[in-house]
Formats: sequence, structure tokens, C-alpha cells
Amino acid sequence: MSGNTFGTLFNVTNFGESHGPAIGCVIDGCPPGLPLSEADIQPDLDRRRPGTSKFVTQRNEPDAVQIVSGVYQGLTTGTPICLLIQNTDQRSKDYGDILQTFRPGHADYTYWRKYGLRDPRGGGRSSARLTAPMVAAGAVAKKWLKEKLGTTFVGCMTQIGDVPIGFESWDHVPNNPFFAPVADVSALEDYMNALRKSGDSCGARLRVVAQGVPVGLGQPLFDKMDADIAYAMMGINAVKGVEIGAGFGCVTQKGSTAGDALTPEGFVGNNAGGLLGGITTGQDLEVSIAVKPTSSILIARESIDSNGQPTEVITKGRHDPCVGIRATPIAEAMLALVVMDHVLQHRAQCGDVAHAVAPIAAVKP
Amino acid sequence: MSGNTFGTLFNVTNFGESHGPAIGCVIDGCPPGLPLSEADIQPDLDRRRPGTSKFVTQRNEPDAVQIVSGVYQGLTTGTPICLLIQNTDQRSKDYGDILQTFRPGHADYTYWRKYGLRDPRGGGRSSARLTAPMVAAGAVAKKWLKEKLGTTFVGCMTQIGDVPIGFESWDHVPNNPFFAPVADVSALEDYMNALRKSGDSCGARLRVVAQGVPVGLGQPLFDKMDADIAYAMMGINAVKGVEIGAGFGCVTQKGSTAGDALTPEGFVGNNAGGLLGGITTGQDLEVSIAVKPTSSILIARESIDSNGQPTEVITKGRHDPCVGIRATPIAEAMLALVVMDHVLQHRAQCGDVAHAVAPIAAVKP
Amino acid sequence: MSGNTFGTLFNVTNFGESHGPAIGCVIDGCPPGLPLSEADIQPDLDRRRPGTSKFVTQRNEPDAVQIVSGVYQGLTTGTPICLLIQNTDQRSKDYGDILQTFRPGHADYTYWRKYGLRDPRGGGRSSARLTAPMVAAGAVAKKWLKEKLGTTFVGCMTQIGDVPIGFESWDHVPNNPFFAPVADVSALEDYMNALRKSGDSCGARLRVVAQGVPVGLGQPLFDKMDADIAYAMMGINAVKGVEIGAGFGCVTQKGSTAGDALTPEGFVGNNAGGLLGGITTGQDLEVSIAVKPTSSILIARESIDSNGQPTEVITKGRHDPCVGIRATPIAEAMLALVVMDHVLQHRAQCGDVAHAVAPIAAVKP
Amino acid sequence: MSGNTFGTLFNVTNFGESHGPAIGCVIDGCPPGLPLSEADIQPDLDRRRPGTSKFVTQRNEPDAVQIVSGVYQGLTTGTPICLLIQNTDQRSKDYGDILQTFRPGHADYTYWRKYGLRDPRGGGRSSARLTAPMVAAGAVAKKWLKEKLGTTFVGCMTQIGDVPIGFESWDHVPNNPFFAPVADVSALEDYMNALRKSGDSCGARLRVVAQGVPVGLGQPLFDKMDADIAYAMMGINAVKGVEIGAGFGCVTQKGSTAGDALTPEGFVGNNAGGLLGGITTGQDLEVSIAVKPTSSILIARESIDSNGQPTEVITKGRHDPCVGIRATPIAEAMLALVVMDHVLQHRAQCGDVAHAVAPIAAVKP
Repeated sequence: MSGNTFGTLFNVTNFGESHGPAIGCVIDGCPPGLPLSEADIQPDLDRRRPGTSKFVTQRNEPDAVQIVSGVYQGLTTGTPICLLIQNTDQRSKDYGDILQTFRPGHADYTYWRKYGLRDPRGGGRSSARLTAPMVAAGAVAKKWLKEKLGTTFVGCMTQIGDVPIGFESWDHVPNNPFFAPVADVSALEDYMNALRKSGDSCGARLRVVAQGVPVGLGQPLFDKMDADIAYAMMGINAVKGVEIGAGFGCVTQKGSTAGDALTPEGFVGNNAGGLLGGITTGQDLEVSIAVKPTSSILIARESIDSNGQPTEVITKGRHDPCVGIRATPIAEAMLALVVMDHVLQHRAQCGDVAHAVAPIAAVKP
Repeated sequence: MSGNTFGTLFNVTNFGESHGPAIGCVIDGCPPGLPLSEADIQPDLDRRRPGTSKFVTQRNEPDAVQIVSGVYQGLTTGTPICLLIQNTDQRSKDYGDILQTFRPGHADYTYWRKYGLRDPRGGGRSSARLTAPMVAAGAVAKKWLKEKLGTTFVGCMTQIGDVPIGFESWDHVPNNPFFAPVADVSALEDYMNALRKSGDSCGARLRVVAQGVPVGLGQPLFDKMDADIAYAMMGINAVKGVEIGAGFGCVTQKGSTAGDALTPEGFVGNNAGGLLGGITTGQDLEVSIAVKPTSSILIARESIDSNGQPTEVITKGRHDPCVGIRATPIAEAMLALVVMDHVLQHRAQCGDVAHAVAPIAAVKP
Repeated sequence: MSGNTFGTLFNVTNFGESHGPAIGCVIDGCPPGLPLSEADIQPDLDRRRPGTSKFVTQRNEPDAVQIVSGVYQGLTTGTPICLLIQNTDQRSKDYGDILQTFRPGHADYTYWRKYGLRDPRGGGRSSARLTAPMVAAGAVAKKWLKEKLGTTFVGCMTQIGDVPIGFESWDHVPNNPFFAPVADVSALEDYMNALRKSGDSCGARLRVVAQGVPVGLGQPLFDKMDADIAYAMMGINAVKGVEIGAGFGCVTQKGSTAGDALTPEGFVGNNAGGLLGGITTGQDLEVSIAVKPTSSILIARESIDSNGQPTEVITKGRHDPCVGIRATPIAEAMLALVVMDHVLQHRAQCGDVAHAVAPIAAVKP
Repeated sequence: MSGNTFGTLFNVTNFGESHGPAIGCVIDGCPPGLPLSEADIQPDLDRRRPGTSKFVTQRNEPDAVQIVSGVYQGLTTGTPICLLIQNTDQRSKDYGDILQTFRPGHADYTYWRKYGLRDPRGGGRSSARLTAPMVAAGAVAKKWLKEKLGTTFVGCMTQIGDVPIGFESWDHVPNNPFFAPVADVSALEDYMNALRKSGDSCGARLRVVAQGVPVGLGQPLFDKMDADIAYAMMGINAVKGVEIGAGFGCVTQKGSTAGDALTPEGFVGNNAGGLLGGITTGQDLEVSIAVKPTSSILIARESIDSNGQPTEVITKGRHDPCVGIRATPIAEAMLALVVMDHVLQHRAQCGDVAHAVAPIAAVKP
């Protein structure tokens, strides 16, 4: 109930705080027999980790993952996989001056009202640092999905603040600090340099895609895969909007164009984002999300303290000027976790997914 | 797992098909002692039901609800409340010609691939008719929330197809067939009349709001209330996008404006949509959704049959030219179910919500 | 949370009260493609239903089941199966005199303390009548298990009150009103006739067995199949004890005999009751339960009323002198539901159960 | 689904293997504001830990618990509490000779059949060592229950092998290595010394009791508290039977004695074990369990290897001659976890448990 376990059949229970001794997760439901080591997980963590460019927080965390359980002689055993990540660069003193005040845009006020107390060090439990274990868990799901079904995941930034980013190629994404699918990111660098100088922060829009998805995954009513994706994405810190396929663009579409036509060669178009009635069509899953500007900025903000008295807040410490940048591998991981869960659900209901990966011509029930 | 139960502590299990004998739901977790009769539920069903104007489907269903269990001498007993709605106007013959073909934009193809068979009568389980039991369940949640906490729910249409709709007053919403918050809906009528003549359909954008929400509801990580709202909304038939507060507008905001400032009198602005860190601030919950155009249209569409052969589909029968119209009471109901669930969650964790309805000045943990 | 849904992947949500208009359940998670009609379910309901002999309650309920949803053209569709059973012989007046008193051994007092109110008609929600929908749901599970895996379920009475019942053959069970596995039940008839004349009631001990169970089903830690069986059995009204295999007999065993030896031909003995480490061995599942005497008796009992004042209770109405008699088909059904759930769980985790039905000699991972 | 999370609202997710680097658990759902440190947990772990007498395994594990998350400045924060226990005395070489064979009575064979592979070191995931994190989690539940509601838990051994143990006083339990409620345990010592010399093992019968339990806890149908207790107990390694109250003794009772009479001063007797209709009466919860003999014994046993060939197994290593001895604090912990969960459930449904701790005379709904 307390919302720290993600998933129905492929469960990930997340624990830890930003400035506690360690963070981590327990994956329950991973099928047995998957070759797995820390080396399968670390690359995705490295994509998300702080301190890798001047456009992200300078907190220096290696985010080295340790597999504590669930793997024997290099193979998953079917039992819980505990992943542990030590916190090594906590500077709690940075946060001393905000203990009794509520930072605008942050969860300080709501946590205090909910629980009557809160861990203020680095945002405590509300820190985006808690997405690291999800990236780690997502890497396990990704590996299984790629090996067993050929399903893969990619993501990129499509807009940062006022700057829209065109799409050239997925190949560019790893070559710049913005996860931008373009060769030349000088405009983005200029924008971000000016932003950093101003002490302010900006929002971003991201796109994540699952490729090679079996057909027939998802549930018809509440656990539509769309719904589970929306839940997963809106649960990422700072996300305020989620779209599947055409998204809000569907408002001005007509039915005669919005409904993707079927041909013997496949669908014409993907307004549906790969999902009809909550169930995968076999096309790419197409998801877009909006990430709000970082709430921690160097500009003074009006606020109140725990006595309800007015005060002013300036958030020092080390922060991302655009939290949307590091959100790309997080969103990929969450999408992978959703797809993985639905594969297991499908196996439970229908026995296997073999028929689901066959081309349409070959399928007759 | 099969996704027909909504909620964590206030559970609603939905059953039935569009053209079966009946549809309904079982509510489990409703607190005891709530005065409840069919008269509390029927008004919301009447707002959603078909046949009430020329702009919605002409299928004539009274959607009369029967309380089968869980109420004794006019009070809920704390045991499961089964709500039953008979199907009275099924015309299965209307669908005979689409049995072997897959309608574009519909779940025909994906159901067939998932299950190997499907109930084609009126869309079977994928019909939006299955939202009726949710509206009924939502009415129960609404009644409890209003009586115990003073929380209320409103919704309206903010855009239909190409026509944006301004906001004048919630009072106008019940006075026109579009759930539009404006006095003069002639432009909407003209637009819809032309659309119906063309045989096509259009999308819509809706806004739903919860007012008088206690502060401190929601879970910090995955079951952020934002995430649960996104899940609930994206699970409504035809919804392709969900926004909380500023939504996609946050992409071009700066942190210095996006983070709503706090003052002794309350928050300045509501970009957050009433949620910080997944937990309610006590402000209105602000949600927007995009509803795609109805997939069933009178214009011929390219498709394939179950042998993978090309064919053409024209969907006769009785359909809504804009399914977004009747989605307003549905979205309200789903929002009410989410809030209700989180109230029960909060009681489990923190004992009660009494402190949560107090004004900020009065709250010291 | 409110405990009216049974199962993890094969869910059964139960609703209704003893004297409401109807009782029933919603089965969610039944695989698609199973041939199913009311005729598959009714025989098990008939085995459980009241009024079939003078040794059970004379309430005359046909317990005719109706499939409301989830079946199309004689096959399950993979969507929720709602089963409805009308209550036809409620005589609420029988219970008028106990409205303000708490019957010893009944849930009257605890419901009143929990909820602050209760439905007193025939025990309301606490009536054993609510086991009828479980027998119906169990019949669906039994059919699937028999068709797909060859797994079958049997049960019998092994002791009634002071009278132990030997085991002669499963074939005798359907031929007497006691579910006794013996040819001559005259001793049981004499015992029960004397008991009825005394106005008192007695307890019973039952045995239920699953045969043809695949090996490898069950979870290692909390959802050991033993644990799920214990949960299922102890949830049946009036059950006070559960044993797997040797059960309490293991207390006086030595390890050298308790641990069933393995040979190339199979296990020697079944002290484990078909479960090691919570996982099926492929042997029969062996379960025993203790059912307490019916609490409703014709002998006056000391009690209190809702004002805490002393009073006397005599329970008229129509009651089973030994509720254990009709518990046999109930226990079978619950065991079938547990096995069914674990088959689906196993498919999710390991892909299929094909390897699990192979003989040991053929299995090499 | 994979059964490594215990509980509905007070969740405990367990991870680790007997000979991995560490074992532990994540508690989710603990209310905020509870004073908590390792010193609150360690005493119960010390009662369970090995190596404390010659009658238990000589594996020397300090079982020192570390709180990794969820506590700030000595108070629980309402976020997940991760508890970590390092494994320090693994001797994997002890198990080298049983890698390819299946020990009778153990989970070796069933794990191998389920997963296709297994971690054989010390039983891997099937080791009773995994009960240590549950004892730790139970200590957290015990502390909250004692502080908030005055509920406490005790347990003792009532029979070891052939030797029944009378009840003298709970005060004796901590003063002998058997958890026996008697002053003189010389007969037990003699019995166990002879057993150890023989190389064999024996079973045991335990009793656990919750005292000061609020009235009205539990759910009416499937999540009867009896059912949840049965699930919890049968999930403990080696447990084969569970009784509530009179247990199997109810078979030979009559209704006129089995149903505990109510008087203004309270119930007369406790055949029900503190539960009517699955809901607490306010009396002590009375539970008995049967623990089978340790399967690891020094006597040679007949078995097979993974090729299905006959072989002989002698289990060297360090084992408990009676696993029932150390099961007492485990059973107490599991009972505490069940009660804690139902308290939170009750708060969700009914708002608080204040009325539930009031004496009967004071309670009028």
C-alpha cells in the first residue's frame, strides 16, 4: 500500500534515502536462468549517474551496484535479487539552512503534513536519487527482454526549455550530454550555459520507445499497458504529463486519420503508440513525457517555515539545472519494467508469448 | 493480475460485456455506516448514459443500477457492495458484418492476438460501456468523501476537435450536452452537426478537478497520487494523454515560476496541480486528459481480415461522434476513486486524516 | 485489503449475504478458450447445497448458477466470469429474536464491534452460504486443471464427532450423505440421529486430496503452497485446524522416518503431503482439516445483549447439526483454487508447466 | 506473486540466501514516528540465533542487524525500513558432497524441478536462516503494537518429540534453551542428549499467544485473521500443522460446549482462540503449530541424484537436532506481523482502533 513496490509480477521494492548509508531495491519475480552480473547493470547506472557533465549536478556518486542475492554461479535463481548502491558523497551540511523551511516546488511541505516529520537531507526519500535502483532493475528487465524476445528500449530528449530538438538518429544520443538525437548540440549548450549563469532551471520533453514488442501484451480494462505506462512515467520525480502515441495531438485529429489503418504488410501509421484497447499491436510503443524545471534554484523564493511564518529560500547545494536530462535512462528503465511485467502476465494467462511474436500472416488462433 | 480490479484499499472489480445480459462491479473496502441507496448513484449514471442528446450514441440504455449486496437498512455494512446494471438494448445484428475483420483504431485485432478469440458484440469487453460501473462506484466514493471530508469533484470539456472552449463557470456544465463551462454552446453545436454529417468523429480535451482535498494524501514513490491519477485516466477508453497541473506546459517554464511559492495565506499559483512529491498540498487537484476520436465512423477504412487479407470496413451501428463528451463524468468518477483510495491508505498509515484537513496555520506535528 | 478476493493470479471476488437478493463471485484470470457452461458448475453446487438429506439444514435453495459474463459461444474469453446465484428461500423472520443478542460461537459480537452494525439475517456476510460461490469458482478451476494437466480433487470425512471413519474407497463417497469413504454408514446415521434429537451439534475431520499434481508448483518463502492451502482452509467457516501430510503426527516422528526417501521409482511415503520447501513433489497433496461444531443449536446458551446485559439464546431456524458434512466439496474447491493459482504463477515465472508433468527420469534441466 | 513479500499493509519483503553475503528485508508500511534503533530489534534476533546452546546448530552467526533506511533521528519516517544482516560463518565446503543429490525431506528436489537450477549452499533460499529477517521485522511490529495498543506476544514449546511439556509459567521460558514454560528441564535435556547421540532429529509442538489484542480486527471472508495466521505459520520452514484455539480438539466437542458463552464479565472459555468469524474477540489469540523433525541428520538415507540414479545421503555440517526449538521466536514474530497488518487494515476501514480497545460495557456503536 505504501507505494514502494513497483509491478505486479516483476516486482521491484525500492528503499533508501538520498543521504542514508545506501539505497537499493529487491527484484522479485525475475525468471530463473538469466545470466546476470553487475556488468550487465552498471552501464545504465552510468548513463544516469550525476557528475558526468557540467549540465548535471556535481555530486560525485560512482553508483556502483552490488548484487546481494538471487544469483548463483552467474545465473538468476528465481529468488529475490537484492541490488545495493552505497551513498558515498553525502554532504548533509549543505541542507542545514532549509531544515525549518519548505522549498517551493519540493515535497518538503507535503511530507511534513503527511508524516509529521521528514528527513531533510538531500530531499530524503523524495530525492530523484531513488530512481537509481529503478534504472538498475530496468537493466535486468532489459537484458531478459532482449535475450528472450528481442525487445529493446531507446529514449531521447525532444525539447529542453524553449529549444525544440529535431530527430536525426538514435545513434547521436550517446554522443552528447543531453541524450539529444542530433549531431550538433551547440544550441543546447548555449541555452544551458545561459540558464546556469542565471541561477534558474528549465523543463524538458522526452520520448521513449520500445522496439520489437510482442503483440497481445496488456490487459483490457484497468491494467491497459497504456495505463501502466502512464503510472510508471508519472511516478518519476518531476514528471507532469504523459502521452501515448499521438497524445494530446489526438484532440484535433479526425477519426478517419487517427485510427491507424491495417494492411497485410502491417499498420499504416502509429497514432495509437503501439496500443489498441490497452494491448500491444506489435508496433513500437511510443511514449512522451514532460519534466518540470528543477525546483532547487539559486534564485531567492518566497516561502514559509514550519510555524507558518514567511521566509525566503535560496537552495544552495549541487543540483541539476534541468532534471529532464538525466530522466531519459530512467524513463527507459520504467518502460522496460512495464513491458517485462506484462510479458509475465501474458505467460500466466495464455501460457507463453510464442504466438505473440509471430508475424500476422502466420497467426490463426 | 488480469486488470479488472481498480484500487488498492477501495477496490472496484468490474465485470461484463457490452452485449451480455448485464454489467456491474463489486466494491470492496467501502467503510461501514455510509447511508447509501440507488438514488445516490443513479444521477451520475444518468449523466453518462447514452441517448440523451443527438450528439451521443442513440443506443437507449436506462442504465438502472441495483444494489445487490453490502447495504443493510440503508447503511453500508463494510462488506462487498455489488452493483448490477442490466443491458436492455443490445442489437448484436448491427455487428454481424465485422466479425471477421479488424476495425482500425479498435481493439479487435489486439484482442484476437492476445486471447485467440473475442466477443465481437458491441466491442465486447473493450466497449466503453464498461465505464458505467465505474461511474456508479465513483458515485459511492463521492458520497463518502463529500460527507466525511467535504471533498467534491467537477469536470468539463475544454476543447472539442478544433474548437477550444473557454472557462466561464462550472454552473454552465449541466446545462448543455457537451459538459462545456460556457453559456453559449452554439459554436459547438454547429461544429458537431457538420461532423455528424461528414460521418467522421473528433477528439476532445477534458479537465477534471477535485476541490476540498485534504493535505498529505498520496505515497512518496510509485503510488504518488499523480501516478495513480495518470493510471486511472489512461485506463479510460480512448484516452491518450494525461496532465497534472501545468502538464506539458512545464517544458517551457523556468524553475523560478514553476515552483509555486508558499505564503502564510497559502500557495501562490498551482502549477503543481495540487501535488508535490506525489502528495496533496491541499489545493485543488487539476487534471487534463486527451480523448481520441471515436474509432467507429461511417467512412470506409482500409483494413484486413483474420486471414490477413485486405478488406474495407464501414462501421454502422450507433456510435458517439465524439466519445470525449460522455467521458467527463467518467473522469470525475475515476478521480474520486483515486482520492478515496488514498484517504483509506492515509488512515492506515497515519491513523486518521483529521490533521490533514486543518489549515496550515493550525498544523504543528 | 478487505479480504473478499481470493487468489493472486486466479482471483475470485465474492459478494452477497445469506438473505440478500443474490450471492455470487467474479473470477478474474481464467485463461481463454476453456469450454464452460453452467452444466460444468452445477454438479459441485448440488453436492454442497442444503436440503439434500435430513442430516443437513432444511433450507431449500436450488443454488442454480448463472454465468453473467466472460463466456462467448461456450468458451471463456479471458475476461471476468461473473457467477450469480439467487437466494430463493430466505426466512428473515426466523432471526428476529436474536437481533440484539450475540449468539455464542457466532460472529455476531465481533462484527458488531468491528463495524458498529451488522446484517443479522441468517448470519449476513458471515454465513457459510457464502461458500457456494467458491464451490462454483472451484468447479471452473477443476475443469481447467483436469483438461490441461489431468489434476483431480477428492475429499471425504474421516471423523464425525466421536466416530472415526476408516478409509475403504473413494468410490463410496458419493453414495452416502456424509461424504464418508465407507460402504456402511449406519453407525454415522445412528450417531447423527441421536445428536439431532439432543438439539446439539458436533465437529468433524475431513481429508482432501489433489491427485496428478505437476511437480515444481509453489513459492519458496511465504507463498509456499502449504501456506496458501492453510490460508484457504482456515478461511472456510468453522475450520479451526489444518494439517499437511503427517500434520501434527510429525511431532513424535524422527527425522529418519519423517523425511520421505527418494528412489528411482519415486518417493517412499508421503509424510510431506506432497510438498517440500513449499513446492510440489508431484505426489498427491494431502490435507486434513478440523471443523468445529455448528454454533447454532437448540440448547439454551448464556450470552449478553448489545447493552452488555446477560440474556439467554436459543437458536431456532434451520441449521446443519454438523457443518463439517457439507464442508467436503468446499474444501475440495478451495484446494483446486490454490493449485490453479500456482499453475498460473508457475507459467509466469518459468514459461510453462510442461517440464513439470514429466516423470523424474525424463527431467534434466 | 513470487511470494517473498509478507503482508498486505505492513509489508515485509525478504531477500538473501543462507550462504550469500547478506540476508535482510524491507519493511514497507510502518507508521511514522515510532522510536526505533537496532537495540529494539537485536534481542529477538538473539533469541533465535544459532550457537547459543548445545541443542541447536553450532553455526556461529552474530546476526547483527543494521537499519539501512527509514529511520531519521531515531524515529521511523513512514518510508521503507531496510534491515540488513551479514552472513559471517558460511562454510560452503560442508555442502560439496550433496550438490548432485537430493536430501530427503529437503527442498533440493523440488527447487531443481521448479527452477532448473538451485543454490545448494546451506539450503540456499530454502534455509531456515531466512526466518531471521522476519524475526527482525516482527520486533518492529511488536514495538509499535506494545506502545500503541499494549498488545504483547509470548510463545513456548509444549512438546518435544515424545515428551509433552506442561505449562507452569511464561516466566520460565527465557531461562532454558528449549523455550519451555517449566522450571525443571532435565527430562528435555536427557531426551535431546540421547537424540543427538543417535544422530537423529525430532519434531516439536509450539504454542504462541497474543495478549491484549483489540477487539474487531480481521476480515470476514478470506482474510479472516485465523486464515492469515495459518498462512503465516504454515509458511515457516518445517511447519506441518496449525491450530487456532481448540484446534483439532473441536472435532470431538459438542456445540453446547465449543461455543464460548458470553457474560457481562467477558467470554467463558476460549475454544475459539480469540477469533469468531475471523475477527478478534478481544481475548488472547491462541495458536499451536507442529514442526517436523530436522531433515538434515547424520543417519544415512536412501535417495537419488540428478540423473535419477540411486544414491545414499548423509548430511554432515552443522544442524539443529530439533528445528522446533528455535521456531518459538519465529512464530511469535509472524503472529505479531499478522496482528500489525490487521491493525492497519482496521484503521483504513474504520478510521481508528480506539473503540476497539474499550471494554465491552463501554461500547455502543
